Amino acid sequence: MRTGKHTIKYQNKVYIVANSAIAGKKEGNATFKDYYDLVLEDDLLEQKSYEKAECLLHTLAIQTAVKKLGLLPDDIDVALGGDLMNQITSTSFSIKKMDSAFLGMYGACSTFGEALLIGALLIDSKNASIVTCSTSSHFSTAERQYRYPLELGTQMTPTSQRTITGAGCAVLSESNKGNCPVITYATMGRIVDMGIVNANNMGAAMAAAAFDTYQTHLNDTQRKSNYYDAVLTGDLGKYGRDIFKKLCDEANIATANYDDCGAMIFGDDKKLKMGGSGAACNNIVYNSYVTSRLRSRLWNRVLLIPTGALLSKVSSLQGESIPGIAYAVAIENEV
Amino acid sequence: MRTGKHTIKYQNKVYIVANSAIAGKKEGNATFKDYYDLVLEDDLLEQKSYEKAECLLHTLAIQTAVKKLGLLPDDIDVALGGDLMNQITSTSFSIKKMDSAFLGMYGACSTFGEALLIGALLIDSKNASIVTCSTSSHFSTAERQYRYPLELGTQMTPTSQRTITGAGCAVLSESNKGNCPVITYATMGRIVDMGIVNANNMGAAMAAAAFDTYQTHLNDTQRKSNYYDAVLTGDLGKYGRDIFKKLCDEANIATANYDDCGAMIFGDDKKLKMGGSGAACNNIVYNSYVTSRLRSRLWNRVLLIPTGALLSKVSSLQGESIPGIAYAVAIENEV
Repeated sequence: MRTGKHTIKYQNKVYIVANSAIAGKKEGNATFKDYYDLVLEDDLLEQKSYEKAECLLHTLAIQTAVKKLGLLPDDIDVALGGDLMNQITSTSFSIKKMDSAFLGMYGACSTFGEALLIGALLIDSKNASIVTCSTSSHFSTAERQYRYPLELGTQMTPTSQRTITGAGCAVLSESNKGNCPVITYATMGRIVDMGIVNANNMGAAMAAAAFDTYQTHLNDTQRKSNYYDAVLTGDLGKYGRDIFKKLCDEANIATANYDDCGAMIFGDDKKLKMGGSGAACNNIVYNSYVTSRLRSRLWNRVLLIPTGALLSKVSSLQGESIPGIAYAVAIENEV
Repeated sequence: MRTGKHTIKYQNKVYIVANSAIAGKKEGNATFKDYYDLVLEDDLLEQKSYEKAECLLHTLAIQTAVKKLGLLPDDIDVALGGDLMNQITSTSFSIKKMDSAFLGMYGACSTFGEALLIGALLIDSKNASIVTCSTSSHFSTAERQYRYPLELGTQMTPTSQRTITGAGCAVLSESNKGNCPVITYATMGRIVDMGIVNANNMGAAMAAAAFDTYQTHLNDTQRKSNYYDAVLTGDLGKYGRDIFKKLCDEANIATANYDDCGAMIFGDDKKLKMGGSGAACNNIVYNSYVTSRLRSRLWNRVLLIPTGALLSKVSSLQGESIPGIAYAVAIENEV
């Protein structure tokens, strides 16, 4: 049932019954290292290309999450997801091994949010019993697709974010398995374009979209920002996080409970500039650390706001600015 | 409400209240020339690049459909869609001008089906009142992204299909506007991989996926193939159409009412080999010719099965085979 302008209020319980988060080597040696299901020793996973490695990573994420329920991937009704590769091949080449129906999404780094929103709608409307929402990204595939050949060893600019190597999966179900959090609301974002043309400053390009969706969410649900124990955008990075906070300040929205997955994921490592980004970034932070805090009831109400920069290499080369988008998903423990 | 394995039965009326179909010059001089809203005189639309032209084409399709209702694009709750460009920029750069929420899809040439399926679910579940489902493709953008520079003048192979230049939009609404057809069922496809590695033979790669979805649809709905006045896949082309028919024959499914949008769109033009393909192909055939036949009640029950080949340039270069997918959407007049 629609609430307000762009917010879905799920009528039935949509439980997040299992999670997985797999992190690359660099990610696995940073802030959330104790929370990942698996940390890769080698980002190539003994594959012949980084693209094949990302595909395997995606497959492993789905398998790991589903296995926790004692199920097989074929037991899933619908698999939803996407990634940053052209034509989302990491996702489709993973899911082609499954017997499930497939809904491919593209929202850049916001894709995990879009998949949760639509996956929850399938459960809520009784059109599926159990679905997976998975995304992946890989530093080496993204770098060479969007920017330069890896062999060039290009330096990061001051506003750059490093694409996360990782993959994660959340399994949504109509049935509770123990003590699972519930997706209660989801807000569909509009595309917001700040006119930024620097593809190395994506945090700034996405901050306004994140804020727009957040504000719509609060208006639509009639909730105050302090309703949530944590409000987490992803992946604005440190500079984008500052812009987001400034926009909230100007609108008198408190930000004490706010942080950004991309800004947090590498901690204070100055070499990694503004932090992480990529379709896996908010995904593996949610499916490891945030899930752990929800399960242990350190947090009971979380608003996850995955953000995406809707550019392509060609659009940037043709001088187009970078449109941003964000989806907000409210995940809450039952009391 | 789910019916069978992968089929959604919409509980409420989801009307297709307006349509638009814009065709390129070559498309506009072929089978359905009398049915398009607009035929381009110049496929570049006076833009600086073919990518910018496709984006404008996409915008025009949305504007044209919405205008028929006396509405503006900003009156739309949610815009759903996609295209074949990397990171679906033709779609997102069009929709960024709208105030609507955006859900970006990627199912290659099946995207129009995926958008109808999810768009109808938003209406059915009362999470939106009015949505657009739009896709586009352009010969010149697809050719240079997926294959070779246009300047090379590469010849088509015998099994090639020509990417359609065009864009179309269907507007879905909870309220009827006159005499509108209704989306009654939609079947979500699985990914099927026949092991075909020739990127110039996509019809064969997709035929098995189309058949799989069609068979699932008939099983799930307990309908016979002759329930429909027309069953239309898109875009298998002539060779893929033959394979699809053979698969139906083997399963004792009658195909007298069957044809393929890609095989039909250029008629018997031998120069264009197997026919058309592209995210706009089944879209502009549906939104022009098929819509006209539904509105005039020459047909009352149509099953549209948009098909997609989930390859990328990189996946083909790395020797991967071509996975296919298809979504089936049942569109029926009220009696």
